Amino acid sequence: MSAEDRTETMDDAATSADAVPAVESLDEENTLTRDFVRRVSDLLDAGETDQVYDLVERLHPADVADLFELLGADERPMLAAAITDLMGSEVFAELNDHVRELLVESLPAGEVADIAEQLDTDDAVAMLEDLDHEDQQAVLAHLEPEDRAAIETALSYPEESAGRLMSRDFVAVPGHMTVGDLIDYLREDRDLANEFWEVFIVDARYHPIGTCALSWILRCPRGIALTDVMKRDQNLIPVDLDQEEVALRFQKYALISAAVVDPDGRLVGQITVDDVVHIIQEEAGEDVLLLSGAGDGDINEPIRESYASRVRWLIANLLTALVGATIISHFGGAIEKLVALAALSPMVASIGGNAGTQTMAVAVRALATNQLTRANTGRILWRELRVAMLNGVTVAALIGIATALFFANPLLGAVIATAVMVNIMTAGLAGVVVPVLFDRFDQDPAVASSVFVTMITDSMGFFAFLGLAVASGLV
Amino acid sequence: MSAEDRTETMDDAATSADAVPAVESLDEENTLTRDFVRRVSDLLDAGETDQVYDLVERLHPADVADLFELLGADERPMLAAAITDLMGSEVFAELNDHVRELLVESLPAGEVADIAEQLDTDDAVAMLEDLDHEDQQAVLAHLEPEDRAAIETALSYPEESAGRLMSRDFVAVPGHMTVGDLIDYLREDRDLANEFWEVFIVDARYHPIGTCALSWILRCPRGIALTDVMKRDQNLIPVDLDQEEVALRFQKYALISAAVVDPDGRLVGQITVDDVVHIIQEEAGEDVLLLSGAGDGDINEPIRESYASRVRWLIANLLTALVGATIISHFGGAIEKLVALAALSPMVASIGGNAGTQTMAVAVRALATNQLTRANTGRILWRELRVAMLNGVTVAALIGIATALFFANPLLGAVIATAVMVNIMTAGLAGVVVPVLFDRFDQDPAVASSVFVTMITDSMGFFAFLGLAVASGLV
Repeated sequence: MSAEDRTETMDDAATSADAVPAVESLDEENTLTRDFVRRVSDLLDAGETDQVYDLVERLHPADVADLFELLGADERPMLAAAITDLMGSEVFAELNDHVRELLVESLPAGEVADIAEQLDTDDAVAMLEDLDHEDQQAVLAHLEPEDRAAIETALSYPEESAGRLMSRDFVAVPGHMTVGDLIDYLREDRDLANEFWEVFIVDARYHPIGTCALSWILRCPRGIALTDVMKRDQNLIPVDLDQEEVALRFQKYALISAAVVDPDGRLVGQITVDDVVHIIQEEAGEDVLLLSGAGDGDINEPIRESYASRVRWLIANLLTALVGATIISHFGGAIEKLVALAALSPMVASIGGNAGTQTMAVAVRALATNQLTRANTGRILWRELRVAMLNGVTVAALIGIATALFFANPLLGAVIATAVMVNIMTAGLAGVVVPVLFDRFDQDPAVASSVFVTMITDSMGFFAFLGLAVASGLV
Repeated sequence: MSAEDRTETMDDAATSADAVPAVESLDEENTLTRDFVRRVSDLLDAGETDQVYDLVERLHPADVADLFELLGADERPMLAAAITDLMGSEVFAELNDHVRELLVESLPAGEVADIAEQLDTDDAVAMLEDLDHEDQQAVLAHLEPEDRAAIETALSYPEESAGRLMSRDFVAVPGHMTVGDLIDYLREDRDLANEFWEVFIVDARYHPIGTCALSWILRCPRGIALTDVMKRDQNLIPVDLDQEEVALRFQKYALISAAVVDPDGRLVGQITVDDVVHIIQEEAGEDVLLLSGAGDGDINEPIRESYASRVRWLIANLLTALVGATIISHFGGAIEKLVALAALSPMVASIGGNAGTQTMAVAVRALATNQLTRANTGRILWRELRVAMLNGVTVAALIGIATALFFANPLLGAVIATAVMVNIMTAGLAGVVVPVLFDRFDQDPAVASSVFVTMITDSMGFFAFLGLAVASGLV
């Protein structure tokens, strides 16, 4: 962008800055108010598209994206039709995947291509990657050859890899340049990225040899060679690295941007932290959804997909609950003799389940953040067992004494206390071992740990309590 | 930093780049290998501090921080003693809070002050904020007056607010400067931040009037006025804004840095995205820990603290399980007549619990990411009830048919199917309503929703199943 362009843009910005979002559009938490959304919704239903346009025009693109998500599914295409020329690349880049997919599917391929050409490669890829093959091809056919090639290359990398995430708009210059050369190069009106934070220095084979933060360049005299300013020690991201690993590196090394290299070590793209922030948030947030068996857990997901992903886990849990039910059935005679066993046994199972869930959540997060590794598994297991022992003694004492007093049956109290102690220790063990084993076999520990841990604590709860009741001669 | 300083630093970097981390120190996931950690541990135990130094010297500061976390608690002070002059600010900034706290407590106040002076204000605050008042004062007394004032001001802001998070090292210039003026200003050897990504433009009262990405400055001719280059539309962060809201704004508007203003609108600091990345990760990851009742869920937390935070929730769950046990006791007569009820009732409760946990996880995440707001609560509740209906019909049919066949008792099958349907619908309702109510009353929905939802689904499971068994004349 040339200085002239920039100046014009700034005048535009100044104008739109006068028209700050109307007071009522955002609440104190910076989210769109219910009244605003309702007003847009009413106006859409009334067909008052001009008034909708006036309202929406004042919003930041990120809020326009939020507005789409807050409206009902049937109103979204109406909104899109009402504000066509506000549907810029920034809005599309911020849209929830499901909402974007439905919108994109409702637009003709030519219009999708127009939007894709405005977007950075990574955002265009995000827009196109979920389309079915035929629609994707139709959109690609409308693109300029250069954009098309960039997007096709990106789509050839595995899903959720650095290659899908990276942008091809970066600044790379040869090492023989000085600071002055670089500034002159940047001032020429080239088709460079609008915003970039670091400049990559490459050798003749386009291998990155260093990186320069822009603040260093600005603070150095023009005559200094870039090779004297640059940082040689770089974090090069392999193009096929999983996005979760990319996010962990950005976090670990506090990166703003990083060079992406192909298997030959050539610079092919850059990833900037703003693209990674979404991934960090998603990856960290998805553990709670996966552990609870809620799949994607996206409130914008079509109902059929939510049903499909959740019902699987409910059925899996049904089968594991069957193990518990079978154990109880086995002790039917004991229950007939002392019906209190029927009331108390779910408590023993439930306490174990809770303790197991606690430990499992800790282990899953520690695995996801690379804090629990092969180097400290033994120590963490021992740590969790000690926590389990303290928890077990406390809870077993409480439930044992309460049961002994309430049923006036000290032996029943001793039996339930022992069973609770055994089950909380089992929970501590299973809560670490199950997710670690999944991780060792390269499975996401958040996905299926819960079913196994619950099965173990349920079974152990029923078995230990009812088994001890019989073995102790209580019944 | 002047160009000369920079050049020297770069020479250092070049030297250390030759000594790349030994092959065995990092595995393919970029974490320290078990063999490496064990070797350091063995050498520490053997008192071979020089060899430890040689090994650790090659590591990136972030990996040194990881090494501390991977070692046992008793070995950490030994490592600190062995590598004193490698314990730079970058290592401290990357250390886990608990590990840092213990290390800091083991060092004399003067040494802590020396480290604090090297750190950015935000990192120094993170190091000092958990110390008890007396230790904190001892360290502050050792600081230079200017650093001391900065840290004391930061500590006067609420915990987890923008004021604690912000750095006071930023670049702010008056609007009358041109691009050339700014570059000259930056080239003078001032005590500015090492790395910065944007420059803030302020008026005479130090109110921010615009912001300039460095890439725009580099691409403009020297004569252009900054007020023509800057973006006027800014995201100003109030100094007392909660860090979770700060993180959401960075995400929503894809910010790299943002100005922090005091209640009078004066620029007092800046927050950069690398500080926010940790918060996004923590805030998104803490939901799974909070929902499971695992408190902080940090594997480096002292065992007593883990015990204290977890046992509370186990006891709370014990009390809610008591509600279920009471309901079962109430139906003791029915169970004596048909002992299969004892085996089946935990299944009904457990399926409801699982369905409730799924919906709750979805609602908690949607609330945390500002996707579920007052503007769409009704729509999302209706959505979840439809998913619950589909899940309910499927699971109820499965369990009803299986029970009817297995016990050769169609009425028992019908009773359990109805109870499961009722409980899954209840779970869908409670899974949304409970977290939303907590959120409305400004409580973190992740903290206590789980206990309430489980109590509701347990009670409803036992009550619906056993109640229907009696009401239908089954027993």
